[in-house]
Amino acid sequence: MFVNSYSGGNNETIRIGLVGTGYIGRCHAIAYAQVATLFPLKANIKLEYLAEINQNLAEQKAKEFGFAHATGDWRELVSHPNVDVVDICTPNFLHKEIALVAIANGKHVYSEKPLALTADDAKEMVEAAKKAGVKTMVGFNYIKNPTTQLAREIIQNGEIGEIIHFYGTHNEDYLANPNTPIDWHCYKDKAGLGTLGDLAAHIINMAHYLVGEQIVSVCGDIQTIITERPDPHNPTQKIQVENEDQASTLIRFSNGVMGTIESSRIACGRKMGLTYTVTGTKGTLIYTQERMAELKLYIHNDTPSRQGFKTILVGPTHPDYAAFCASAGHGVGFNEQKSVEIRDLINGIATNNSIYPDFEEGYNVSKILEAIMISAQQRRWIDINYSS
Amino acid sequence: MFVNSYSGGNNETIRIGLVGTGYIGRCHAIAYAQVATLFPLKANIKLEYLAEINQNLAEQKAKEFGFAHATGDWRELVSHPNVDVVDICTPNFLHKEIALVAIANGKHVYSEKPLALTADDAKEMVEAAKKAGVKTMVGFNYIKNPTTQLAREIIQNGEIGEIIHFYGTHNEDYLANPNTPIDWHCYKDKAGLGTLGDLAAHIINMAHYLVGEQIVSVCGDIQTIITERPDPHNPTQKIQVENEDQASTLIRFSNGVMGTIESSRIACGRKMGLTYTVTGTKGTLIYTQERMAELKLYIHNDTPSRQGFKTILVGPTHPDYAAFCASAGHGVGFNEQKSVEIRDLINGIATNNSIYPDFEEGYNVSKILEAIMISAQQRRWIDINYSS
Amino acid sequence: MFVNSYSGGNNETIRIGLVGTGYIGRCHAIAYAQVATLFPLKANIKLEYLAEINQNLAEQKAKEFGFAHATGDWRELVSHPNVDVVDICTPNFLHKEIALVAIANGKHVYSEKPLALTADDAKEMVEAAKKAGVKTMVGFNYIKNPTTQLAREIIQNGEIGEIIHFYGTHNEDYLANPNTPIDWHCYKDKAGLGTLGDLAAHIINMAHYLVGEQIVSVCGDIQTIITERPDPHNPTQKIQVENEDQASTLIRFSNGVMGTIESSRIACGRKMGLTYTVTGTKGTLIYTQERMAELKLYIHNDTPSRQGFKTILVGPTHPDYAAFCASAGHGVGFNEQKSVEIRDLINGIATNNSIYPDFEEGYNVSKILEAIMISAQQRRWIDINYSS
Amino acid sequence: MFVNSYSGGNNETIRIGLVGTGYIGRCHAIAYAQVATLFPLKANIKLEYLAEINQNLAEQKAKEFGFAHATGDWRELVSHPNVDVVDICTPNFLHKEIALVAIANGKHVYSEKPLALTADDAKEMVEAAKKAGVKTMVGFNYIKNPTTQLAREIIQNGEIGEIIHFYGTHNEDYLANPNTPIDWHCYKDKAGLGTLGDLAAHIINMAHYLVGEQIVSVCGDIQTIITERPDPHNPTQKIQVENEDQASTLIRFSNGVMGTIESSRIACGRKMGLTYTVTGTKGTLIYTQERMAELKLYIHNDTPSRQGFKTILVGPTHPDYAAFCASAGHGVGFNEQKSVEIRDLINGIATNNSIYPDFEEGYNVSKILEAIMISAQQRRWIDINYSS
Repeated sequence: MFVNSYSGGNNETIRIGLVGTGYIGRCHAIAYAQVATLFPLKANIKLEYLAEINQNLAEQKAKEFGFAHATGDWRELVSHPNVDVVDICTPNFLHKEIALVAIANGKHVYSEKPLALTADDAKEMVEAAKKAGVKTMVGFNYIKNPTTQLAREIIQNGEIGEIIHFYGTHNEDYLANPNTPIDWHCYKDKAGLGTLGDLAAHIINMAHYLVGEQIVSVCGDIQTIITERPDPHNPTQKIQVENEDQASTLIRFSNGVMGTIESSRIACGRKMGLTYTVTGTKGTLIYTQERMAELKLYIHNDTPSRQGFKTILVGPTHPDYAAFCASAGHGVGFNEQKSVEIRDLINGIATNNSIYPDFEEGYNVSKILEAIMISAQQRRWIDINYSS
Repeated sequence: MFVNSYSGGNNETIRIGLVGTGYIGRCHAIAYAQVATLFPLKANIKLEYLAEINQNLAEQKAKEFGFAHATGDWRELVSHPNVDVVDICTPNFLHKEIALVAIANGKHVYSEKPLALTADDAKEMVEAAKKAGVKTMVGFNYIKNPTTQLAREIIQNGEIGEIIHFYGTHNEDYLANPNTPIDWHCYKDKAGLGTLGDLAAHIINMAHYLVGEQIVSVCGDIQTIITERPDPHNPTQKIQVENEDQASTLIRFSNGVMGTIESSRIACGRKMGLTYTVTGTKGTLIYTQERMAELKLYIHNDTPSRQGFKTILVGPTHPDYAAFCASAGHGVGFNEQKSVEIRDLINGIATNNSIYPDFEEGYNVSKILEAIMISAQQRRWIDINYSS
Repeated sequence: MFVNSYSGGNNETIRIGLVGTGYIGRCHAIAYAQVATLFPLKANIKLEYLAEINQNLAEQKAKEFGFAHATGDWRELVSHPNVDVVDICTPNFLHKEIALVAIANGKHVYSEKPLALTADDAKEMVEAAKKAGVKTMVGFNYIKNPTTQLAREIIQNGEIGEIIHFYGTHNEDYLANPNTPIDWHCYKDKAGLGTLGDLAAHIINMAHYLVGEQIVSVCGDIQTIITERPDPHNPTQKIQVENEDQASTLIRFSNGVMGTIESSRIACGRKMGLTYTVTGTKGTLIYTQERMAELKLYIHNDTPSRQGFKTILVGPTHPDYAAFCASAGHGVGFNEQKSVEIRDLINGIATNNSIYPDFEEGYNVSKILEAIMISAQQRRWIDINYSS
Repeated sequence: MFVNSYSGGNNETIRIGLVGTGYIGRCHAIAYAQVATLFPLKANIKLEYLAEINQNLAEQKAKEFGFAHATGDWRELVSHPNVDVVDICTPNFLHKEIALVAIANGKHVYSEKPLALTADDAKEMVEAAKKAGVKTMVGFNYIKNPTTQLAREIIQNGEIGEIIHFYGTHNEDYLANPNTPIDWHCYKDKAGLGTLGDLAAHIINMAHYLVGEQIVSVCGDIQTIITERPDPHNPTQKIQVENEDQASTLIRFSNGVMGTIESSRIACGRKMGLTYTVTGTKGTLIYTQERMAELKLYIHNDTPSRQGFKTILVGPTHPDYAAFCASAGHGVGFNEQKSVEIRDLINGIATNNSIYPDFEEGYNVSKILEAIMISAQQRRWIDINYSS
């Protein structure tokens, strides 16, 4: 089934194979449905194939999400000649295997984050993709929000001067209740890291995107507060949690800029607590994803008696917003930033241009996450080696 | 072209004919594109026909929005046998004519607000629809926002006691600059009323929706501040503005509840200033559309030393949010509330159930707007007659 | 007992006689204690005499507040040769009687608001003071807050252009609980009006202060929601409430500017809900007394993509703040605005200059309040006659 | 000259000697002026002696602040038999010398923060005071704000469960402009540390106060961004800045709780950026000193669909607020928290009870600050030794 696609005369069609239809897979499906109406794409999109853990579920979801074909075996999908892009929305531990087979079959790969369970795995994926010459993308969707694009524009314009400090968080409370049964997020072999892999990955990518420099040194501290949780199949039994609940990290960027990154999955009250405060020599930006349509901007050389943080409501004068609405202040939602991401994926493939964030960035983030973990274990600063 | 439609086994298909593709027509197109992926609909949707002012534009927009056929003549669309619903997104002065022809052809009609230029016109439309037995809907989309649905749920649960006061605004600043050239919004024969028709209509409908009672008396005051504006074709010439820039109105609901409604199209800084403060005997709700994903709730019988307004981030425990995202705080946008509206339209037609807000509500709002205008001219309270 | 007074070489001493030591009387005492350390006054202050309802209470409070002499009979105080200023902090119904005797004795009079129970009473007081040539002041303290002084400065500078709309509220919830026993606020012969006299008086004065024009027409609506309350001496008995709980009013200023004023004493959650939104042709100011150290300012001719409300934290570059602290953002409290008021009182008397707000303004506010009451009863607009 | 003092029958008088009348000395003077009217003190206060750098200035300030005697030589004051408490408001480098002489003369000592330029100096002061048996207090005034007292009460009640994370900042922008001439804050021999001593000291004390545990390990990172500044006497010449502009630190409390503390004196837009987010297993508190009259509280076991941060306006049901005002939401200012501090000082002396925060706490804070500095230099975690 074709999604409506306004491709400006170009007749190419990019055929999507989606693996996994849980939380984030459904978000992808929503974005695929609307993207061609929102943006003038450089190619048509065809929702070709959908894989789930069994045929029945796959067929139900294919119907629900508008995919033409369904399979209970992801290997069928990733090797199918009619699939151009493999979109991986499975639990973390499957990313690597699926991606490598897809790449081996010459498919472009669009993977959710974190790219892999370890930096070594991520490296293998980067190298395979490079060798095969396929395009890659990692779903660090928060940098696609028009409001955050505006933040980057302000920084790049020099409106807040030279950046001197970055404070970023990604805090949520989805595991705050100790009676919440254990799930795959809490196991090393399924999720790898805990809050670092699930949440901190986003704010690290955000730091790179906003500051425009790599994080090169870290010193982290981590804790698992809720050390065991109920067995979902037998709630009176407790099972050991294998990864960290919260992490705080001092960072340095390649240009020497200082910063701090915090992350928690048990931070009561923070529902979508991705936040940043970027301080420059001439001004400051403050943002929280919970108010994703507004940005606070302070400019130090305003008249002293008229200084203050200005609350800018995102609107059609800002990047990519006009696609959603012609008036300011009408809001943007999670699915809309995901649509920008898919627009970038499709156009990057159609025009054979680079895509950001790609697997390289996914690998860099993995390196940083591992360095944080090591620094926390060894209670010292760790430098990240980008040359390897 | 079919939009993906997950209709739960029902094979009915509802075919849409869209008239007008400007600002709001495009919003409809986005919502049509995503609605079937978001919600389990009771029928399939087919984007059948699109009309614009000429064939070329119609064809371009049909391609862009994914409609199967295009026409430069709306009369062709509204009489076409393959169209089930006529969706009217034209300037206000055309609503009535198009709707009446569509109804005469047995089509269901989905019209943007305000329903018509006068209450008499609106009445004619209501009666025609009733006689023809077709379904109708008016695009008062703000009541479809999950956050506002939550507000209504809180009120209906009695959580803030009996309502004793409603304060609502719909202020924007799209005409705040006196050098903005005149456009159709400023002419009586094109727009009817000024800010009352364009903006106050929304907050009046919102008052009905939240308080659950009709407004029965009004006393308004209006002003045109910028009395002439540049001719867009000859900016050195000024043309007279024919309707009001701002309006403030005291209201009473059928149950005696007091309130105030304010509206302006020149309210500097208010980009999407639809706001409400609903005060009850036991609590209060405060909301602004500029932060459309959060609601402030105060409960008076909290422990005195722990009283305060609670900021609730809309999430999957609230009405209709889970369709967009499985996690709280991930935001909702304008297009998402429009998708809820279209879900209600499609399901109402498919199941032959009543739809809200329908033309009757559109007519009621028109009566109230006219009463405000008369009360302002006569500087006295006006009661609204709902029996006629 | 002398309060410390830095009077810049001037040796005059102004001797204060305070009548009433309840809620607001205590606030006056705090302000007297600190004012001379805060501001370089034009005269010394001596806390000479304090009157309460009996000698014991008077003596206790005199000690507590640092007054030299105490009396259980206010008549003794207002006629005492050592008293220069009579400061009236009694319940409303006593203001007139005490003021008239004080004036007859040649005392300057500083009265809490509302000035009197009726406009006629207020007029009598104004005329008596004028005839006697004494100075007067009414305790509309909210206009003395440095943040609100900044708002006025911004308006007077023309920074937001011509004012086109004023929205003001003074909402509180001190009587929101229907089980709160009746007190003097609810009786006509003790308080006069209800929320209008107690709270709306402040926001009306604020409107005059900010807009710089008189309110000349009003159309109000009022309601008593909790019509009876427990007898404090016999809670199972209910006693009739005699005045209004809430009031909403359309207003026009002398220059034609529109506005709306709302007031309630049962507005759940509003603890200090004096707020204003002043809209001009070029910008907007938004303020709430609950965040009395910050002002939101929007300037429409900012670069479109950088428009937004700026949150200005009050600081030493703003009027009268430096007296409290040399750094911005360190906060101001209720007692500090009262200190500014007393500074104005003392300096006005010492230099024989006009004081604002004086009894004339108190009388004007009373006229407006009565007009609102009449307009609500007669359900029509009422013009205020300032010539009488 | 006596300040008014309501001492509840106790006839003791505590005589104050104030050394230094700059920024913070003036704040002390304001608080002395009002404290006895605000609180029922356990002793009278007499403003006995004031010292400044020369006799003229001392006399002028004594008159302005209401002190009976003045001197240009602080040694005269600290040894005068009529002085009971020496209140030190000088630049940092003088704290130690003055305090030691005062202690040697048997005076109680009330010193502004930081207690001394080094931890060793602070230790000497603690030991001298202990040996002499005099009372001591350090001016960490922010913990005296009623709102912050409420935060501590909530934590101690267990309302947010066990504390699991503390994030605190004290950021300001008083040196953000690189053209601001150098002053004593920037020299090691005058100020000691930079932002750590001036600002971080407050948030470290706050962490102790709120969490109720000592910080025992730190890992800090610091930077001087503006490395040289204009010579105030010859602006074309630049002088080297000798201490840090910004500092970020990972911390651990004695009970293992993690945290992060950040401080900057060049943080554009932060005027009074002392903030804390205290996360517990059952809830979270968020506060910023820029809105010092409100506290945000989240309780995780609220009904899921009614969860959210509640904004509590400080009022008479909270600690020490009723002294300032009988109604909630009327605001508190910097000088009011200073009055609470002085109330604690006077009552601690009068009743011979312990005072908090005393020199011991000042010394602990100094140890932590030094450990941060060393950890930043050595790029490793440092444990703090409290046994020495």
